[in-house]
Parts: sequence; structure tokens; C-alpha cells
Amino acid sequence: MSSLDRFSLNQATTKYWPIPDLVAGCVDAGVTRIGLWREETAAYGLDKTADLVRDAGLTVTSLCRGGFFNQPGWYDENRRAIDEAATLGAPTLVLVSGGLPEGSRDLDGARAHIGEAIGQLVPHALAAGVRLAIEPLHPMFCSDRCVVASLGQALDLAAPHPSAAVGVVVDTYHLWWDDQVWAQIERAGREDRIACFQVADWITPLPEGVLLGRGLPGTGSVELRRFREAVDATGFTGPIEVEVFHADVWARPGRDVLDETIQGYVEHVL
Amino acid sequence: MSSLDRFSLNQATTKYWPIPDLVAGCVDAGVTRIGLWREETAAYGLDKTADLVRDAGLTVTSLCRGGFFNQPGWYDENRRAIDEAATLGAPTLVLVSGGLPEGSRDLDGARAHIGEAIGQLVPHALAAGVRLAIEPLHPMFCSDRCVVASLGQALDLAAPHPSAAVGVVVDTYHLWWDDQVWAQIERAGREDRIACFQVADWITPLPEGVLLGRGLPGTGSVELRRFREAVDATGFTGPIEVEVFHADVWARPGRDVLDETIQGYVEHVL
Repeated sequence: MSSLDRFSLNQATTKYWPIPDLVAGCVDAGVTRIGLWREETAAYGLDKTADLVRDAGLTVTSLCRGGFFNQPGWYDENRRAIDEAATLGAPTLVLVSGGLPEGSRDLDGARAHIGEAIGQLVPHALAAGVRLAIEPLHPMFCSDRCVVASLGQALDLAAPHPSAAVGVVVDTYHLWWDDQVWAQIERAGREDRIACFQVADWITPLPEGVLLGRGLPGTGSVELRRFREAVDATGFTGPIEVEVFHADVWARPGRDVLDETIQGYVEHVL
Repeated sequence: MSSLDRFSLNQATTKYWPIPDLVAGCVDAGVTRIGLWREETAAYGLDKTADLVRDAGLTVTSLCRGGFFNQPGWYDENRRAIDEAATLGAPTLVLVSGGLPEGSRDLDGARAHIGEAIGQLVPHALAAGVRLAIEPLHPMFCSDRCVVASLGQALDLAAPHPSAAVGVVVDTYHLWWDDQVWAQIERAGREDRIACFQVADWITPLPEGVLLGRGLPGTGSVELRRFREAVDATGFTGPIEVEVFHADVWARPGRDVLDETIQGYVEHVL
């Protein structure tokens, strides 16, 4: 078993690496799995991306992202996202719920709406063979990006739905601060909800807007190996995606970032 | 009963308002309570501040802050902070725990150390008649400022100690995203731990470093009145401090900020 067997490069880590170069770079580095994003695949062409990836022998581990249930047209938009995941052969569509509706302070209401919205998408997800993965984001994104702010809450939202259709994302960057996370990872395994495992490190200072502040594995404060071991202890054997958003990382050549990502993964995650 | 009976202006909201002007401005506005900060009182003079505040008929509701137990000399520094609170007549010393020790990823270890450190301070706090208030900060501060990231965790840390010596801070800015917060506020009341109630609103985008991004009451996403009602429902009748850190707010004349703070308080908190 190679050290890269479960490794998946999430495209967001090398955001500006053109898709043909990304695919060739992965093959060259011995990486067989990638996570893709809708904007980038649409820009290159959905079918073209699917063909390119398949012909290169790569497996798509997830598609980011559906969700944003606070926006008009969410239902049709999420059905399209499910279809795109199916076309790409991605087993999982990551859902970022969206924040509070414009001008609203009704957090409970927004959260209840997420649960109902996901329920409406379940039949289409099942028919398409795509699993919806509710991603809790760090609480600093609660108002403007994702009202789902902890793993326990994501599991509560998933609970009414069949686990074949609805799971959760365990992302180290978003969850590392939570003293309940170890119990909730165990619960996620017990309830068969771990649909996606993503890794990034926590570094400071956070940049303005806080979106592009993640660190490559090993550069920050997170006990990444402890997370991997906790997820594995539930019986999870799926891919381990590294997904880092950072302006400085994006400014560097894709292949350099991939090499450094692999090194950090081997040293700090495996 | 005046609408300002429980209102307290935390000095951090008008950080650059010189202490004599702050005191005169509060008296002029009918504000009888203030929360103070160590740096500002030290710069003006501790005894001088205590005399000025007392002579003006103001009550000091809290002193910020002790804590930072990850730094060398924390024990002596916190004893000094307790003494300063006693001199100022502040019943409560707010504790911000500090982040991870330099280079460490051991979050559990850091949290355990907080509990032990507070235990060592309890006798001095009891002797001085000053209550230590553990403040959970927003999880975005977990690595570099405060490893205590939820109200539940603060209550767990307080639990081994007498409630006369150790309580918690309920601060809307830090806790608003947490779906467990309502149950934990109820618990905090039941366990007699609410030592300080602070109010600020959540606004975005967050600035670089995220420290100076708070909003005056009513300008953001937080259900402030719901928090006040939840805290009151436990039987808490203490002061309600408004504590806002924002560069734009600090750049304005203190009296203007105080007037706007009172207006936001009356409209959105009471």
C-alpha cells in the first residue's frame, strides 16, 4: 500500500492550476484522487473535465459545492450540482449551507430551513447515486457563509434522512477547536455519516474576510494525525482530501504546492 | 427603574476616551456603571482611577483582564490583577485564558493547565473578595488568544471550584453561533456561575487579525434580546456590559459612541 493510496488533492488547494495541468501533475506525482469544484469544472467544461479525469485514471472523491439554501433558486441549483457530481463520477456533493438570509437574525429558523431543504433534495440525490455531505464550517463563518457550525449540529441535521443520501464532512480546519469533536466523530461513524474527510491546518493571523487563511498540513495548530486516527477508528477507509485556501499558496506553481502538500500529508496526517 | 439601571459601559468600547472624560461623560449621560481595563487604569494610575470613579458615584462592574496562563509569570501577574480589581472595587476579574503555548498543538493539555492555574488563584481571589470569571472566546481565537471556546467548556473548567470564587462570562459576541448556548446559559444559572454578562454584535467582514471586528448593539446578526432574556431567566439581575472592539468605533468621540451604545442597548437588548 502506497502512502498516497487514500490521498486526494482538493482542487481548491491549487485553485489557479489549469485543469489539464492539474490532472497531468497528479498523475506524474502518483496521486490518483482529486476533489473538484463546480466553478472550475464549468469553466473548463463539465463533460470535458469528466473525460479528461477518467482517461487519466483519476478518481473524483467529491464535488464542491452545493448548498447556500438562503439564496433564491437553491432547489434548482442544487439539483444541477447533484447532476454535475454524477457526471464527474463524484460520489459526494459537499453542501455549505449558506449564512443568515439578508437582514435576518433568525439563526434557529435558518438552521431549520437547511434541514427541510436537504430533505427535498434526497430523492434526486438517491436517484443520481450522489451522497449529500453537510459541511459544518468554522463558527466565524456562521453569519455569512454557513449557519451549520459544529459536527454535532451537522449530524442532527442529517439524522432524519437515510445515510445513503445524507452524510457529513469532517474538516479539521473547521472543527479542531471543538472539545466535543472526538465524541461527535465517533457518533458520525456509528451513524454511518462520514461522507468526506478533509484536512487543512489552522494558522494565524487570519486575513481580512477570513476565507483565505488556511495552512498546508503541518504548518499550524491542528492535531491532524489525531483527527485521521479518530476518523479511521470509526471504520472509515475513504479518501483523505487536503483542501487549503490561501492566497499565498494559490500564488505558487501548482506542482510545488502539490509536492509540499504531499510532504505535509505524509509527515503530519498519515 | 431607569432603562440604564443595569447598563454598564465597558471601557474597551471607547478605548481612547481619557479616563476623566469617560467618567464625566458617563455621569452626564446617566450611566452609573463601568467596566475597566488594566492597561488603561495603570496608565492613568490605579489609585487615581479608583478615587475618581468612586467620587463620581460610579460602580465598577468588572476588570479586564487576567488569564494568559500560557505566559511565563502568569501566577504573579494574575495575583496582581486580582489586587487591582479589589482596589477598584470591581467584584469580577475577567480571565482570558491565552492560546496554545508557542509551537504546541496540545489543546487538551492547554485546557487542563487553565483549570489547574485557576485553582491556584482561588485562595487569593476569595481573600480579596474578587470573583474570577472564565471567558469563553469565539473559536476563531482558539490558537492565539483563548483555548476556552464555548460556554459549556468554561462551565466544565469552573465546576471544581467554589462558585463564590469562580464564575464565567456570557458574552454574546463569542457565543451567538452555538446551538448549545441556551442550554448552557440555563446550566450556568443553575450552577450559580454567571459572573459577567457582556454584549456586542457580530458584523462582517471580519478585519485582518479578527480582533477589532465587533459591532455596536443592533448593527449585526445576534439575537441580543434573546440572550438578555435567557440570562435573566436564570435569575441573574447583575449588570449588562456593552463591550465593543472596533477601530472605526474607537476613532469616534467617546460621547457619540456612548450615546449610540445606549440607544442600541435600549432598542436591542432591553
